[in-house]
Amino acid sequence: MKLPILIINMKVYPEVLGKKALELAKVAESVARDLGVSIAVAPPITELRTVVEGVEIPVYAQGADPVEPGARTGHIPLEFIKETGAVGVILNHSENRLLLNDLGWLVGRARGLGLETLVCAPDPFTSAAVAALEPTAVAVEPPELIGTGKAVSRERPDVIVRTVELVRGVNPSIPVITGAGIEGFDDVKKAIELGTQGILVASAIVKARDWRQKITELANALR
Amino acid sequence: MKLPILIINMKVYPEVLGKKALELAKVAESVARDLGVSIAVAPPITELRTVVEGVEIPVYAQGADPVEPGARTGHIPLEFIKETGAVGVILNHSENRLLLNDLGWLVGRARGLGLETLVCAPDPFTSAAVAALEPTAVAVEPPELIGTGKAVSRERPDVIVRTVELVRGVNPSIPVITGAGIEGFDDVKKAIELGTQGILVASAIVKARDWRQKITELANALR
Amino acid sequence: MKLPILIINMKVYPEVLGKKALELAKVAESVARDLGVSIAVAPPITELRTVVEGVEIPVYAQGADPVEPGARTGHIPLEFIKETGAVGVILNHSENRLLLNDLGWLVGRARGLGLETLVCAPDPFTSAAVAALEPTAVAVEPPELIGTGKAVSRERPDVIVRTVELVRGVNPSIPVITGAGIEGFDDVKKAIELGTQGILVASAIVKARDWRQKITELANALR
Amino acid sequence: MKLPILIINMKVYPEVLGKKALELAKVAESVARDLGVSIAVAPPITELRTVVEGVEIPVYAQGADPVEPGARTGHIPLEFIKETGAVGVILNHSENRLLLNDLGWLVGRARGLGLETLVCAPDPFTSAAVAALEPTAVAVEPPELIGTGKAVSRERPDVIVRTVELVRGVNPSIPVITGAGIEGFDDVKKAIELGTQGILVASAIVKARDWRQKITELANALR
Repeated sequence: MKLPILIINMKVYPEVLGKKALELAKVAESVARDLGVSIAVAPPITELRTVVEGVEIPVYAQGADPVEPGARTGHIPLEFIKETGAVGVILNHSENRLLLNDLGWLVGRARGLGLETLVCAPDPFTSAAVAALEPTAVAVEPPELIGTGKAVSRERPDVIVRTVELVRGVNPSIPVITGAGIEGFDDVKKAIELGTQGILVASAIVKARDWRQKITELANALR
Repeated sequence: MKLPILIINMKVYPEVLGKKALELAKVAESVARDLGVSIAVAPPITELRTVVEGVEIPVYAQGADPVEPGARTGHIPLEFIKETGAVGVILNHSENRLLLNDLGWLVGRARGLGLETLVCAPDPFTSAAVAALEPTAVAVEPPELIGTGKAVSRERPDVIVRTVELVRGVNPSIPVITGAGIEGFDDVKKAIELGTQGILVASAIVKARDWRQKITELANALR
Repeated sequence: MKLPILIINMKVYPEVLGKKALELAKVAESVARDLGVSIAVAPPITELRTVVEGVEIPVYAQGADPVEPGARTGHIPLEFIKETGAVGVILNHSENRLLLNDLGWLVGRARGLGLETLVCAPDPFTSAAVAALEPTAVAVEPPELIGTGKAVSRERPDVIVRTVELVRGVNPSIPVITGAGIEGFDDVKKAIELGTQGILVASAIVKARDWRQKITELANALR
Repeated sequence: MKLPILIINMKVYPEVLGKKALELAKVAESVARDLGVSIAVAPPITELRTVVEGVEIPVYAQGADPVEPGARTGHIPLEFIKETGAVGVILNHSENRLLLNDLGWLVGRARGLGLETLVCAPDPFTSAAVAALEPTAVAVEPPELIGTGKAVSRERPDVIVRTVELVRGVNPSIPVITGAGIEGFDDVKKAIELGTQGILVASAIVKARDWRQKITELANALR
């Protein structure tokens, strides 16, 4: 994970249905190239392979199941994600929460497979717990701000500061990323000033009228 | 769903990792064409689009999540399955069980979207409950026989007979399919004799040394 | 289950914390005796034994886990409910939903143990599915009305009528009970006119200023 | 929590059905008094109040749900556990696993209510994650050894040593307890030598022919 980073979680918004996921990924790739900023995308699972094969920026899966390849119907083992060429996986997003034990298992197994893990947490204490599992990065996102346009860096700077502090106490080598409500340039600037090393964004970009403009705006704040 | 049918659930066996899922689908397509038998496949979700675009036989998703498109990370709404061109979805497989209320919601929504639903159940009473939801078909699979090579049609013919009877009592237009432990020609023949209209098979095919030979053997029993 | 019936689901409202659950049960018992109406209560699990031992009206558990007695930490097997003297269990309440397969297992096992089952469902189709499992009774509760004071019998009479029709089609011997938003005498009268044989009520009673007055009002509508 | 401690998890074994839970608790109380050793019990939830009111040793609930008191059917909020007089709660037992975020919420809320939390984890990394949440104590239990009679302290001393080390790194004030397969005096002695401050035991005691003898044997190893 090249820091600082802008990670675009496409979720399963209607705006990225089918081939539109690849379109968004290509815009992100183009901005990343133009600005020299590290940008990654997490498309819907049904488009994961298409996106991985269509762009050169890092691609993450939005989640994975705590199972090995085998007699499992409808599950997504890490090995199947890895095989597509994706570089990593988002785990424990507040919309896709995991049992602690499964999360521990997944982080360890992903490490063994050479997959990066971006593990989400809702608050400072839980972020510290995540850090103890030694993922590639922790993303703190207060769930009550997700999708609201009220940026965590403006509304709850204390959450970010405390998270950075607690995560550092557990393992100073784990970078903290943040998200929830991030809308514009200033939100990102502020998040970086508070000690984070990247931004996890969804609706602000996916639902923007002009993807290129919005990605450029947010990425510029990381330069 | 063209009956009688052979549905191949690829699960996430290592044998179908990556492009091998498409290979298996192509073999199934070739046998379907040669014998004039209805065969469908359910590949891993990461290969769903590739398989749909690569073969002309019906393709099913192995599962779906009870959510609408929107702010959902790592979920698979029916709309995203539909958009790939898949014709339907397997629901409530014993390895991927659903809350009753979510199952009811998914079956109704799939109907509205024009997606077929093959809903699994472990026993006769539960199969009857499923039939009341009016899916495209019910698949009865005693979980203790799945993957064992002990065919449900040989080991527990009573389960099949009773399921057909109870499902007919609730809604005679819902076909019953069966699975679990199906290994060879005679297992399929027997299942059809007991009143079912198709077979759901996984390990017997996926783990066969010769995919073409095994699919041909099972499909021949449906002619 | 003596029909028509008024079942009071105490949930875990602060109003029934600790010994107050028994107080409410005693008021219900007193009204049942005075009016000769069938009334049952479902207290918080921590008070189940105390309430069973303290009143003579039927007592239900608010839920159960799909496990047999044994090496299970923090679970509630049906056998432990039965042993307290409770007569039955509410299953699949929309606040405590069950996997279809687990629900099928629990209903069958409760039958074997001589425990009654009141199984909730959110809509007519799901109610029909529940009826196929042959519980003691089905309770249809549109989740969007629960706790609103907008009675299902006034707001969605079509849901009740359709549920009664579909359940009858599956198994005419299964009584339908209803709930959600029931507040007063007229709501109950209407529900009975629409073909149901009882009422499942929570907040209207638990949060009433005068428990006796509210229980009397609703019970009178069942005479 | 008075250390070192012997905590008896009764689970929902048939041996502690109904009033037998109180019997076992009384034997534990009697041994605790005779030997001057700290012993606690965790009875089935249906017997929690009876046991709390019947003995003077500390009583724990076997689990709790991540909800506040209110419109929740079949749940167990911490407040309802507290009200019985129980001193704490076991969380995230491998038979009753919790979402990481729910676990974080429960530990924080229990602290606010003055309830102790004994949080289980399957391995060293997950134990360290738990320690970051600042529970009263961490219990490391490799799930593959639970109920086997193969004591973790004999079979996997490395797991205990590494857990103590990692937990200390995160927060040296959190005691580590261990369990899984503990059968006799030597198993307990060994666990203490490896740096733990207590034992969580279930089947070895519950299924012993003579409860008093077995509790005495294990408690003696803590003197």
